[in-house]
Amino acid sequence: MRFVTVQHNNESFVGVVDSNESKILLLNPAEEARTGQKSFPASLLECIAMEERFINQVNGLLAWVESREKSDSFFIPLEAATLLAPIPRPSKNIFCVGKNYAEHAIEMGSAEGIPKHVMVFTKAPTTVIGPNGTILPHHAVTSQLDYEGELAVIIGKKGRAIKKEEALDYVFGYTIVNDVTARDLQSRHNQFFIGKSLDTTCPMGPWIVHKSMIDNPNHLDIQTKVNGEVRQSSNTKNFIFPIEEVLAVLSAGMTLEPGDIIATGTPAGVGKGFKPPQFLQPSDQIDISIEGIGTLINKVGDNEAY
Amino acid sequence: MRFVTVQHNNESFVGVVDSNESKILLLNPAEEARTGQKSFPASLLECIAMEERFINQVNGLLAWVESREKSDSFFIPLEAATLLAPIPRPSKNIFCVGKNYAEHAIEMGSAEGIPKHVMVFTKAPTTVIGPNGTILPHHAVTSQLDYEGELAVIIGKKGRAIKKEEALDYVFGYTIVNDVTARDLQSRHNQFFIGKSLDTTCPMGPWIVHKSMIDNPNHLDIQTKVNGEVRQSSNTKNFIFPIEEVLAVLSAGMTLEPGDIIATGTPAGVGKGFKPPQFLQPSDQIDISIEGIGTLINKVGDNEAY
Repeated sequence: MRFVTVQHNNESFVGVVDSNESKILLLNPAEEARTGQKSFPASLLECIAMEERFINQVNGLLAWVESREKSDSFFIPLEAATLLAPIPRPSKNIFCVGKNYAEHAIEMGSAEGIPKHVMVFTKAPTTVIGPNGTILPHHAVTSQLDYEGELAVIIGKKGRAIKKEEALDYVFGYTIVNDVTARDLQSRHNQFFIGKSLDTTCPMGPWIVHKSMIDNPNHLDIQTKVNGEVRQSSNTKNFIFPIEEVLAVLSAGMTLEPGDIIATGTPAGVGKGFKPPQFLQPSDQIDISIEGIGTLINKVGDNEAY
Repeated sequence: MRFVTVQHNNESFVGVVDSNESKILLLNPAEEARTGQKSFPASLLECIAMEERFINQVNGLLAWVESREKSDSFFIPLEAATLLAPIPRPSKNIFCVGKNYAEHAIEMGSAEGIPKHVMVFTKAPTTVIGPNGTILPHHAVTSQLDYEGELAVIIGKKGRAIKKEEALDYVFGYTIVNDVTARDLQSRHNQFFIGKSLDTTCPMGPWIVHKSMIDNPNHLDIQTKVNGEVRQSSNTKNFIFPIEEVLAVLSAGMTLEPGDIIATGTPAGVGKGFKPPQFLQPSDQIDISIEGIGTLINKVGDNEAY
């Protein structure tokens, strides 16, 4: 199942994309037709917090919809839908693993930069935008805006001191994020947070793919294009710290909660890694594709209008 | 006005502490007696988001209570009250300024560590506990738990690209936080986040003092005691970056929102600064006092029980 948050008739809805990627089932309107009640929570974040009950209820609804002769009225065409970020407003900062691909650590400095321990920084929730949302150029504060295509893990179950062997049981699903970074601010302010948290610098989506659809999250092709040119091309098998280890380290003394978003790091090929560097410019289009998930597309705006 | 969040009869209430610090007015019960409606939002975070309307409504209520002959029934004694953190669950990570006192930067390394630019990292919302709440020792993950007494700024109004001259207009008030830190994790994981985000490592309170009660937040005595022994003693006049500059830098490209919490950095005298270091031990009591605000007291637990 692929879960989306859709803007439709000035409201936001949780929906499920069909297997052809042609249409979206809006959960609550369909559930109301089935049971008389809009019994799903309003946001995907709250749905995820229901844990297994959510998936069970969706499965029940899907079976009912399929059994109907005329079920088209519950769907809207994907093409016409305005997708928001699947979690438009996370309830805490997005966790981000730094330098989790050796080649990227090297392009950012040298092999000495390859971390021996998991490195984590965060992005403010105010950074999140959806698929096709506009990344502001932020000319007033940066001249080195850069892309970072990343696989993101969505936590599905509360946990602390999670064991590596059980870590994937705590995952709800996966999505794509672009960890857009102001390189000049990142280095000027020492800790990464400020350079990572400009408004609109966390495009996310297009949807959350349920974990049942991903055999091995540590073995997925990942590719980033800028204006059609391939810049990043790798596979999550190149993680220095696989997802299980990231979750074990993060949760060792800190409780993870449903809806937590963990960006797993970016492969080599960021703009700063080129000679000369190729930072983002107004009108640039960034496409990030991950095997088994899809493609997240965003453009840099021509001006600073929100 | 000093705003608290109180646990009372298994519910949490927003309250105002009286000028003698002897009793707390619970806003909604009193408002219901006045108007027939519990018209304050349930959480202080939501009250703060009301901006000026909140303060006006509280002032109206206080005037009404004072005009009553028998007003005692609206109050509970402060001594008997269970205070939670004023904002028990922030809606994003707590922003923390690193090394904002030169003497502390030096004790953490050398004068080369004195930052030239504002340094910001974050603590997860799951770290927050209230006055008298227990700090877990986290023996399984750290042997270097340390205290950091800090003035915290609570944002009262949404803003981006805030000018220094107008920065204090965006403040709702001030409180105290103890930025408890696992020094071994802080250095092992390079970026500060992991060492700063263990559960229970952000004691906060005892209340938020409205900005109208603080003449100059950049000129307040601050003192930390461990088991009665003075460890940190300074004044916020020693900030490298005064509050106005912190808010201007943070908001340059990132929107600040009502209820955002910004810890402004800790003065010299942390446990790591002593020779030999004096890290926190089970049963240690930490008292942090800030002029015009009050004292935040917490103990380290004897075990890992939540």
